[in-house]
Amino acid sequence: MTTDALIANGPLDEPSKIAEIIVPAMGEEELDSVLANGATARLLLGVAAQDDCAAFRLEGDQIIVAGSDYVRGPKFSLYEKGFITNYDIGWYLAGANISDIAAMGAVPLGLLSVVRYPKALRDSDFSQLIEGIRDGARAAGALNVGGDIGSAERIILSASAFGVVEPGNLLTRTGARPGQFLCITGPTGLAGGAMKLANAGEDIAREEYSALLAKWQRVTPRVTHGRIFARSPAVTSCLDTSDGLKGAVETLAAASGVSIVVEEDLLPIDDSVRRAAARLNCDVLELLFGDSVDFELVATVDADGVNDVSAECAQSGLDLHVIGRIEPGSGSVLQRGRETVGIPGASWRHTA
Amino acid sequence: MTTDALIANGPLDEPSKIAEIIVPAMGEEELDSVLANGATARLLLGVAAQDDCAAFRLEGDQIIVAGSDYVRGPKFSLYEKGFITNYDIGWYLAGANISDIAAMGAVPLGLLSVVRYPKALRDSDFSQLIEGIRDGARAAGALNVGGDIGSAERIILSASAFGVVEPGNLLTRTGARPGQFLCITGPTGLAGGAMKLANAGEDIAREEYSALLAKWQRVTPRVTHGRIFARSPAVTSCLDTSDGLKGAVETLAAASGVSIVVEEDLLPIDDSVRRAAARLNCDVLELLFGDSVDFELVATVDADGVNDVSAECAQSGLDLHVIGRIEPGSGSVLQRGRETVGIPGASWRHTA
Repeated sequence: MTTDALIANGPLDEPSKIAEIIVPAMGEEELDSVLANGATARLLLGVAAQDDCAAFRLEGDQIIVAGSDYVRGPKFSLYEKGFITNYDIGWYLAGANISDIAAMGAVPLGLLSVVRYPKALRDSDFSQLIEGIRDGARAAGALNVGGDIGSAERIILSASAFGVVEPGNLLTRTGARPGQFLCITGPTGLAGGAMKLANAGEDIAREEYSALLAKWQRVTPRVTHGRIFARSPAVTSCLDTSDGLKGAVETLAAASGVSIVVEEDLLPIDDSVRRAAARLNCDVLELLFGDSVDFELVATVDADGVNDVSAECAQSGLDLHVIGRIEPGSGSVLQRGRETVGIPGASWRHTA
Repeated sequence: MTTDALIANGPLDEPSKIAEIIVPAMGEEELDSVLANGATARLLLGVAAQDDCAAFRLEGDQIIVAGSDYVRGPKFSLYEKGFITNYDIGWYLAGANISDIAAMGAVPLGLLSVVRYPKALRDSDFSQLIEGIRDGARAAGALNVGGDIGSAERIILSASAFGVVEPGNLLTRTGARPGQFLCITGPTGLAGGAMKLANAGEDIAREEYSALLAKWQRVTPRVTHGRIFARSPAVTSCLDTSDGLKGAVETLAAASGVSIVVEEDLLPIDDSVRRAAARLNCDVLELLFGDSVDFELVATVDADGVNDVSAECAQSGLDLHVIGRIEPGSGSVLQRGRETVGIPGASWRHTA
């Protein structure tokens, strides 16, 4: 059945959506992963199997990690305003969930996606959403292996992702120790900048804002970084910036029982964030530290290993920025020249 | 902080909800599973770790199964009408998701729960919901190991469950073959009966309806049945009745490429379903086969193994009912005396 035919006939029911849209979109997918210790994972049952569950065969010792993110909320005002499409939010759902897998140092395997939609949603829009989920997962090396679809008053999107990592290589938030360096995989503030500009009435579809909007359209979880971190004995902790950079630093300091000093001069700042701050007439550091869901990774690295880790990232064509250091104590501060000040931006209090 | 204090201060923000309600509710949880082949799974990071993901250490060859169910929808009119509480729907979320794990023959390990709530929801209600999820998971041998909480316009509940099974013991929907028997773990129609009575204006909180309402209040996934089925070489396929008995039979017949003959005289019928049918002035078979989410398991069993499987269930104090047979061909029918007729009830077309 073609997309045109789907529209002409009105939205399909659930079993037909699975048979006509979802299973064809997924194709005959295969996935094999091999960890550094020789442990393997292989897909047995994916979407096409249409069984009660997806299934992977695991051989050898490994740690499986799993997390869930609901991604539909006020932040999808960008969708309501037409800046991101159904395909984009599908991709976002996959990327946001796989980012948590990357933050544990794991190889992503599968995504379970929950897609509830209003009955009036056209099948062509539904198809694009499913294709966005598929492509977002594939871009990160994972497969959409199942989930739940059905109707609701409005689009509701939630997912779970899971992956595997070698025993001993799992990255948690508790390993930061005084003397280590704080590193980040890329500049922050882009996603938040896009949101704030759109809320201020700017047309962020314009070319000058493309780098900002891309953060919402093509979430790129830092899987390769995560795997480099996991395999390096010098990397001691990791988390993603899904609660903003200030949130990540505060969470890491609290979980590890340390103090974190971020150095202003070391922070990577994207030109697009500088321009957004100028347009919004705000401090660029507020964008950079604040509520911006850029899905970068923050990690701590032993002082004598940081050059090796940076070099390994560079060999994969990836950046790594040292942005601070770990000290004894608690809390987190910004070093500005010879002064230390509080970190700008709002902390993570989603529902306060 | 006590529950009273929580109410007096108004709803907590997200990080406080995690720290004050969720982590204390979960306690210091531990979970170890050992499969028949000696493979093990052990919880490394649960809710208390508050990391990006939950983590389990797996040793030895095993199959991991994972599925997702969104459970908030029109069917929760029972919640809107006050027949089921926040605790009950929490339990339902856990039970519904773990039922899919049971249907694969797997040992449940973990549940990731997505709970989005209106800002006006009292913390005491939120606590009860979280406790319901916890207790529903624990009753099935699993732990709530993480997920996502936050606000939304109304309560949205979704989850993913995962578990492990020995290679070779995975139960799918494709293994039914002619000559085998069709079995079910218990009577159906109770959940649907409760819903239809409530929709007809009956007060289903009354004692006479307690067996029906209990299907919504305390979902009991058939994990022990599933494990008996998984370990028996005589059991060839399995699925749960979350789309109703008619839906399960049709799905199984289509997935395995067989015809299924259900025998009317063999169907287990609970007295409460007979009474509900009388009250509703409908055919008891319509309740029994129709849209009733009873979370029983339907399985196919080799003819020469069915007595052993039944005996093993009986040793665990569990029922198993032979209700039909598998034949060559396609489709499914009801044998009524010497006649065969179409199976009563509506097929699974949630959004038709």
